[in-house]
Amino acid sequence: MSAYLDARLGRIYDWMAREGTALAMFEDSEGHRDPSIRWLTGHPGDALLFLSVDRKAALVPWDNNMAALYAEADAIIPYGEFERQPMKALKGIARYLKLPRGSKVEISPETSYTSFLRYIEEVSDYDILCRSGGVHEEVRQMRCVKDEEEIRIYREAAAITNDLMDQIEARVRQEKFRTETDVALFIEVESRKRGCEGTGFETLAAGPGRSFGIHAFPAYTDAPFASQGLSILDFGLRYQGYTTDVTMTFAREPSKPQERLLNLTERAYKLALTLVGEGISTRAVSVAVDELFTKNRKIMPHALGHGIGLETHEGPYLRSRADNTGSLGAGMIFTLEPGLYDPVHGGCRLENDVLVTGGGVEVLTSSRIVRL
Amino acid sequence: MSAYLDARLGRIYDWMAREGTALAMFEDSEGHRDPSIRWLTGHPGDALLFLSVDRKAALVPWDNNMAALYAEADAIIPYGEFERQPMKALKGIARYLKLPRGSKVEISPETSYTSFLRYIEEVSDYDILCRSGGVHEEVRQMRCVKDEEEIRIYREAAAITNDLMDQIEARVRQEKFRTETDVALFIEVESRKRGCEGTGFETLAAGPGRSFGIHAFPAYTDAPFASQGLSILDFGLRYQGYTTDVTMTFAREPSKPQERLLNLTERAYKLALTLVGEGISTRAVSVAVDELFTKNRKIMPHALGHGIGLETHEGPYLRSRADNTGSLGAGMIFTLEPGLYDPVHGGCRLENDVLVTGGGVEVLTSSRIVRL
Repeated sequence: MSAYLDARLGRIYDWMAREGTALAMFEDSEGHRDPSIRWLTGHPGDALLFLSVDRKAALVPWDNNMAALYAEADAIIPYGEFERQPMKALKGIARYLKLPRGSKVEISPETSYTSFLRYIEEVSDYDILCRSGGVHEEVRQMRCVKDEEEIRIYREAAAITNDLMDQIEARVRQEKFRTETDVALFIEVESRKRGCEGTGFETLAAGPGRSFGIHAFPAYTDAPFASQGLSILDFGLRYQGYTTDVTMTFAREPSKPQERLLNLTERAYKLALTLVGEGISTRAVSVAVDELFTKNRKIMPHALGHGIGLETHEGPYLRSRADNTGSLGAGMIFTLEPGLYDPVHGGCRLENDVLVTGGGVEVLTSSRIVRL
Repeated sequence: MSAYLDARLGRIYDWMAREGTALAMFEDSEGHRDPSIRWLTGHPGDALLFLSVDRKAALVPWDNNMAALYAEADAIIPYGEFERQPMKALKGIARYLKLPRGSKVEISPETSYTSFLRYIEEVSDYDILCRSGGVHEEVRQMRCVKDEEEIRIYREAAAITNDLMDQIEARVRQEKFRTETDVALFIEVESRKRGCEGTGFETLAAGPGRSFGIHAFPAYTDAPFASQGLSILDFGLRYQGYTTDVTMTFAREPSKPQERLLNLTERAYKLALTLVGEGISTRAVSVAVDELFTKNRKIMPHALGHGIGLETHEGPYLRSRADNTGSLGAGMIFTLEPGLYDPVHGGCRLENDVLVTGGGVEVLTSSRIVRL
């Protein structure tokens, strides 16, 4: 088994032993994505994963051919053997592992209340735990701090992202893109040519007629891109499972009110960058940026940033909400993405990906506001 | 308000009055998608929707500019007024509607057990219901049966999908596509040119080297497409919110074992088509197809089909699982998609979209296995 998977599993087994969890069940399915399974086994999706306190990992994949290619686990058992039903799989695996009656079995804290009631009823031999602060959240916490392998992957992913942004800027300057679709599909093609799995999320390309939307709908259209006014391009590349997330704004002959939005967004970005670092409260940074906007009689209608990784949005969360008590730690990779959106003048956002290092931060990506 | 939105809301208000639900809360957010909000208001995403038994709909959108363009509701209140927190929004809306203490308030049955405990604690003035068989499931049931407006949309969506399939087959025959990426991006470009919002899900294009996977990973790559052997193309177009879902298989100079997979898949498809119709058990059809495969010593590693609509996968579900007790009704639109996957010979799948009519069924799309 790859050493880095082994190390991740080891830390979870240790946690389970300390906390008395005999078996942990992870589920990745439509409507219930959990890339922790990929993080722990390499299997890219649609599977159950069972971890037992005696340090065994059993993967139950939907697609066996796929698992044979990608997955590492102590046992791989086709989902079909359990009629592709999570509760049947849980019972089957517990039998297979000879799990003593009454053992503590953790299921995802995202399990719906209605499903939880069924687990309690149908898997009555075990003590089913569905809780905050359990093994699933522990794994998510671990995933916030990237290990050496992940940082290596991110440096490569960022280099490809930066290269693409340079190519895009050059083509915009040469007026080679006419529509939002042109630029979005350029990213689809070029990312794959450069070894990416694809994009991390649907590229948002919004020309001046649509950039007032935080997340343009539809994501891209045949409308003009980078024509007079403000255009937003928000994209990420998925590389070895991990996604980057950047936003460029293209401003062609901006009006005075547009220039004011751009300058304020750039000031907010720079302010955020001076504040972030190891041990810093994510709320404090977010509040500082919100205050800069408020002082200038503007409101940013979304959070300042979020962690990235196997998910496009994961911890840490840079939010000014009162219930945000987190802080930044070395190895975390997150976005900074201040933005302003005006129904008349259009919107702008500047977003880059930042790695917290022991000594400070390293900005991995090189997005910018491009004035044309 | 558009007449069809009005009619949908009216049926839900009637249900709420009958069942004693004073307020129903719907949530569409990352990790918790619920297109019922679009179905009821036209708003395409990221919002809360509150329906009260006194027949008022209050939308709480994340993006106000977007709501101004798309949404119809009695009240539209920015999410920012509630710090973008669902529980705060629920409390605020209940106050705004002067909801009597102790009223029954339904939240999604998908609400996690851990969140449900927080609702109970924080919104203690009301009787919070999180249950199977409640208003959310009622809406999902209603959505399974498409109304006239939705059938009109589907006919248009299917016509575009069919046109694209013809274009794709012609280009494959002319050997104009070299790689999986070529064909996938052709769909991205041409769907948008024809007025689609985009694709309904990530196009799966798997050439002969990768078609053994049920859902190829990555979705498409620079590998050859429609070269010697079996290639699968699974795509859907999103048109006015609704997605089609078809799979073509391209077989170039198939070997005997490959021809056997193709023939058996076609037989299974034809068998399914003769069996489906109003009042028919979805399990019975699925079991019949599974039995055909079993008799021929093959196993289909997935379900026979699923409903389509604002979600790519919704009811009805055509599954042979013992707990599937549903049946087909007029107005339902679903896929039939038998497939076989062999790690050596590759995979094939044939998938079309079918509308149940009063008199029988109408196959909306025209996918086929293409022999080259």
